[in-house]
Amino acid sequence: MRVNGTWYRSIRPAAEGAAVEVIDQTLLPHRFEIARLISLDEAVRAIVRMQVRGAPLIGATAAYGLCLALEADPSDTSLRRAVNRLAATRPTAVNLRWALRRVEASVAGLPAAQRAAAAWEAAARICEDDVALCRRIGEHGLELLRAATERKGGRPVNVLTHCNAGWLATVDWGTALAPVYLAHDAGIAVHVWVDETRPRNQGASLTAFELGAHGVPHTLVADNAGGHLMQRGLVDLCLVGTDRTTAAGDVANKIGTYLKALAARDNGVPFYVALPSTTIDWEISDGLGEIPIEQRPAEELTRVWGRTRRGELTEVEIAPPGCAARNDAFDVTPARLVTALVTERGVCAASAEGLRNLFPEAPEAEVRGAG
Amino acid sequence: MRVNGTWYRSIRPAAEGAAVEVIDQTLLPHRFEIARLISLDEAVRAIVRMQVRGAPLIGATAAYGLCLALEADPSDTSLRRAVNRLAATRPTAVNLRWALRRVEASVAGLPAAQRAAAAWEAAARICEDDVALCRRIGEHGLELLRAATERKGGRPVNVLTHCNAGWLATVDWGTALAPVYLAHDAGIAVHVWVDETRPRNQGASLTAFELGAHGVPHTLVADNAGGHLMQRGLVDLCLVGTDRTTAAGDVANKIGTYLKALAARDNGVPFYVALPSTTIDWEISDGLGEIPIEQRPAEELTRVWGRTRRGELTEVEIAPPGCAARNDAFDVTPARLVTALVTERGVCAASAEGLRNLFPEAPEAEVRGAG
Repeated sequence: MRVNGTWYRSIRPAAEGAAVEVIDQTLLPHRFEIARLISLDEAVRAIVRMQVRGAPLIGATAAYGLCLALEADPSDTSLRRAVNRLAATRPTAVNLRWALRRVEASVAGLPAAQRAAAAWEAAARICEDDVALCRRIGEHGLELLRAATERKGGRPVNVLTHCNAGWLATVDWGTALAPVYLAHDAGIAVHVWVDETRPRNQGASLTAFELGAHGVPHTLVADNAGGHLMQRGLVDLCLVGTDRTTAAGDVANKIGTYLKALAARDNGVPFYVALPSTTIDWEISDGLGEIPIEQRPAEELTRVWGRTRRGELTEVEIAPPGCAARNDAFDVTPARLVTALVTERGVCAASAEGLRNLFPEAPEAEVRGAG
Repeated sequence: MRVNGTWYRSIRPAAEGAAVEVIDQTLLPHRFEIARLISLDEAVRAIVRMQVRGAPLIGATAAYGLCLALEADPSDTSLRRAVNRLAATRPTAVNLRWALRRVEASVAGLPAAQRAAAAWEAAARICEDDVALCRRIGEHGLELLRAATERKGGRPVNVLTHCNAGWLATVDWGTALAPVYLAHDAGIAVHVWVDETRPRNQGASLTAFELGAHGVPHTLVADNAGGHLMQRGLVDLCLVGTDRTTAAGDVANKIGTYLKALAARDNGVPFYVALPSTTIDWEISDGLGEIPIEQRPAEELTRVWGRTRRGELTEVEIAPPGCAARNDAFDVTPARLVTALVTERGVCAASAEGLRNLFPEAPEAEVRGAG
């Protein structure tokens, strides 16, 4: 997507040398800087520190992390160690595991000397595929927005989104925001309520930045506000991403998503979840029981990072010294609260049947477990 | 309540001179400073800037604001002007209006020379009454906590609260936190999940400060986390305050309360609202339709105030420059989501009948409108 007139992707191999370039998302919206990753260590750190985040982008970064590891040492031991380290960076997003398996499969059986090149090719394919999947999600979601604006006689559609499921969370386009971009570009009036998304403020720092750069009308609100806005008829639909979707349609997404889904149900507002099929975990069906929820450092909650009036970037403490804090990064929204899933193959019910109809090639035995 | 071993109230007349002392809540938890208010202007500003906040404390401050106005000018014109200015400071809390009427009634018909003294007496009575009401709310709520810990075989009761309904929101004791303090003092193990309460962070800055100063175990969480904690069985009950309660039991409270009530309902967690009867608006029944919701400056959301590593207090901007933001300060939780109301006269259903049984002297014609 465009930033100041230039088209960027959130990740790309460097033009020169064995390196990967990512947008350092910990500096947004205050600074737009490209970080250059030249080793497995740096790729691991970029994921852990959330310089890159968002399930699809975590997967892409992990794929490139394997490339960097194999450039340095193409041995079986190196490969195994790199896979294990990258897989351990973040527990909730399932694309990570999927991307690692895909790169591993592409180098399996190759002589050591050919492995790095094969891995770079596989990582590039993962990225190209992700762009294509997101674009198709956007096309299917666009029809939902078009129908919503038609129901309103052409008045702007008010979409509420949580966290960042835009192009910065993927390689390009985004998942939940892809339909918004396509609708805006197609002349459909869209306005987005942007949840701040505490504690890391991805709404304020990433989604507001993205939408602003693309010219999509948007308003930042506290995470607390969504229910109130829905009670007042100010939200036409909710549209969020997901870090892991079970075969039965439960979705793990950024903490707080579940609360918005409850408010949507209580107010008759459709609640859509947009996802590439790479975030579906066909091996599990019970989101609450089976999806591991990452706990992150308490300091992410008690310290807030931003720009002073003098333009300096700094952190401020908002809690009393020594205050205990708990920071669960995701929650699970049960399928019963999800109006529909928006995938690259179309829109389906958030259910085992809905997903199986769209993805009949998914392993039958595993889907059966979702009943 | 105690702060560093000294017993404080949130507001009191100054020992010398026509002045009122309040704890400047905009500086907490970083600095504990007493602000001295010596004029109507300063009282108005203290409420608007939220140096004082919380429905009962707003009422008490407004009462003292009238005293300061009458000290300067005891004329009818001065009184009317002061009432109008104070009434316009914050629209949602109904105690404000109630306290102004009570002081007005106490000076009505008095010669100008006696008005200020009568007003000081009336304001002091409002404060003493508030302390007594809160204490009794605490005693009734204590029984709920005692029953909850007995159901758990004596294991700690996990209470989730939103915003600050502690002694800093009242004159002393608090509403939602009064039962917590009494339970803790009675040796009942209580642990409080403290919602951060964006955008003004009253949970982090006031509730965590209060509970820490009193030694009550607590953990700060993002506003987004409550539903997830309830899904995991980590919340035994929710206990919040209210800024205005309708005659039918709908409650307006800090924005985000409604989302927690929805999650409580979805997970079978009791949701209690604690209130002195001074927050009941007997004139209205439909909370969503009839309670005015304050909109506050967008900057409260886009700028976060805190302490740097060097100990300086500063504000940081978290959103892109010029980002639009909307800041509704309250939402309405319909009575159907409230398990019970905890008042100074006992616990009752959140309904016209429940309230009428406890407060039979409430104007019948007005209560009838609540049916």
